[in-house]
Amino acid sequence: MEHDERFGHARSVTLPGPLALDGGQSLAPVTIAYETYGTLNADASNAILICHALTGDHHVASVHPVTGKPGWWVRMVGEGRPIDPARHFIVCSNVIGSCMGSAGPATAAADGAPYAMRFPVITIRDMVRAQAMLLDHLGVRTLTCVGGSMGGMQVLEWGRTYPDRVQSAVIVASAARHSAQNIAFHEVGRQAIMADPKWRGGDYYESNDPPAAGLAVARMAAHITYLSEAGLTEKFGRQLQARDAVGFGFDADFQVESYLRHQGLSFVDRFDANSYLYITRAMDYFDLAEEHGGLLANAFRGSKARFCLVSFDTDWLYPTRESRSIVQALNAAGAAASFVELSSPYGHDAFLLEAPELNRVVDGFLRAGGL
Amino acid sequence: MEHDERFGHARSVTLPGPLALDGGQSLAPVTIAYETYGTLNADASNAILICHALTGDHHVASVHPVTGKPGWWVRMVGEGRPIDPARHFIVCSNVIGSCMGSAGPATAAADGAPYAMRFPVITIRDMVRAQAMLLDHLGVRTLTCVGGSMGGMQVLEWGRTYPDRVQSAVIVASAARHSAQNIAFHEVGRQAIMADPKWRGGDYYESNDPPAAGLAVARMAAHITYLSEAGLTEKFGRQLQARDAVGFGFDADFQVESYLRHQGLSFVDRFDANSYLYITRAMDYFDLAEEHGGLLANAFRGSKARFCLVSFDTDWLYPTRESRSIVQALNAAGAAASFVELSSPYGHDAFLLEAPELNRVVDGFLRAGGL
Repeated sequence: MEHDERFGHARSVTLPGPLALDGGQSLAPVTIAYETYGTLNADASNAILICHALTGDHHVASVHPVTGKPGWWVRMVGEGRPIDPARHFIVCSNVIGSCMGSAGPATAAADGAPYAMRFPVITIRDMVRAQAMLLDHLGVRTLTCVGGSMGGMQVLEWGRTYPDRVQSAVIVASAARHSAQNIAFHEVGRQAIMADPKWRGGDYYESNDPPAAGLAVARMAAHITYLSEAGLTEKFGRQLQARDAVGFGFDADFQVESYLRHQGLSFVDRFDANSYLYITRAMDYFDLAEEHGGLLANAFRGSKARFCLVSFDTDWLYPTRESRSIVQALNAAGAAASFVELSSPYGHDAFLLEAPELNRVVDGFLRAGGL
Repeated sequence: MEHDERFGHARSVTLPGPLALDGGQSLAPVTIAYETYGTLNADASNAILICHALTGDHHVASVHPVTGKPGWWVRMVGEGRPIDPARHFIVCSNVIGSCMGSAGPATAAADGAPYAMRFPVITIRDMVRAQAMLLDHLGVRTLTCVGGSMGGMQVLEWGRTYPDRVQSAVIVASAARHSAQNIAFHEVGRQAIMADPKWRGGDYYESNDPPAAGLAVARMAAHITYLSEAGLTEKFGRQLQARDAVGFGFDADFQVESYLRHQGLSFVDRFDANSYLYITRAMDYFDLAEEHGGLLANAFRGSKARFCLVSFDTDWLYPTRESRSIVQALNAAGAAASFVELSSPYGHDAFLLEAPELNRVVDGFLRAGGL
């Protein structure tokens, strides 16, 4: 693919693998779709890996090929932004299990048919191992990792799995494990997908008729958790949708209903239902302390990275107390950690929205690390 | 039906109506299923109406005919309990729109076929009007109203619509209007039901094959809102379901998944999907202040009732601030109001669980009112 300054440098690489997975299986070959922005400097010290969230992709600062919308983090990544192609070699790859070009349930297995549910169940660490393979391929040894939500989980996992490769780590609106409530919401989404007869046990690719209704319901339920109660009240309250009085029926009377329906419907155009199953599963399995006797600090012992954690006060999906417990663990492990809770009315979604304070924090942290 | 002291006195009455509904339609006849416990005293001053929640019924202190489980509020209603058939004439009726015997989508319309989606969309006030018709039929003029969750909304509506009939009113874990987030969760549930092909536009009664999968997903999503995050963590955390390690598949690995699936599956045996649509709609439409220029206090002017409000500190469905705003409105309207926030780890569901403090509050309040 030709390099286009405006859209970054979108590519795909198929590495031979095998990639040994936490579940015991392995993946080979390993196809990874990614974008890069900027240039790796002579001593390969300016690389920043950006890790995306559940339904994100590698087009962090480029137009999305399906929706035509700007990249999902143009507020953070771009000219004059904290992560700047003029100074940094920026890499963002689509996680394995996803559906934007990296190996996932929709890609062809050895027999030529889509993996579908034959794709192995993966973990956050498996995603990170694939990223490490990509960075090896790109000649990047040490790096800075930045991510929000599930992206933050990957950053934490980088710090644990590759303690000698991570120089600096920025974790925004995230957690070191999925709580019972987090798992519960994901399970509702998975059940909504699997209850859709069009899911067909995952074998819907040939039909051109995917389980859109189930996936839309899953997205609607999840979307509520991305917003704060106060934010929903401020944005929608009980305002009606293009009418003066309630309709005494089951159309979308309220703006919040119309908004949620739109979120559900537009999501199914850009995302694969099976990928949603696999990635939510990986998140639910995430518990960084588990292998370390339940003591999170042990996960970070030996890490040479500097850590920066940011939470938002109205985020009830990954609330501030989750970030705080990570910081306490980092402190206990003797790692360098800074933490700030930012104020925002927008709940978990705040990290994707205009947040000048977040930009200041990330910019300051990266520059203090010589980036 | 014969009177059975142990099970209360379960009956059904078909009143001629018509019942004029908020939506402009009317309902005739109006069948109401109800139970009574105890005896109306000579001056008809000891009547207590108990109003049930979304998926509740009139078997408040009697064995449920489908599940065989004890009544849903045996902790509050019964011998030696705050609401006691030895002293009170207790009435609990199934709300219209429901599926336990009162007029609802599953009941036969004039043409002999089930109403299904031809049943008129109703409001909380319509439910209350039907209850008033029942109480007229039972010779009860003035009464005390008690309810939690949607039951509390009915109690508030009684205070507004029949200010001269309500002597005392107990509102537990409730709100005077549905918030944007409340509406959002209900909309997810409705979409899950309507996305199920077996819903068939509501015409599934003949098929004997109802939209169970969609209804189960709706129940699962709603159930999360009934529990607190801390309660889920305490009860389930990340504990695995009958296994030593995660299964790297899509079975219920975690106890919280298994629990939620069970909640969904057992619900569909006892509840009608169309009723779920109608009752959630009624709740979403609920906004007591709306007809009063948005000023809740105006809804209570002229009320002679004493009000008692109780909230639970971990209830995020109808949080304490909702009860507090009702108390402020009652105060502004010059109504007698007492309020207490109780501590419980169990979230919204706390009002249905063993809660000695709740019992003490209700008992004291009723006795102070001469009941």
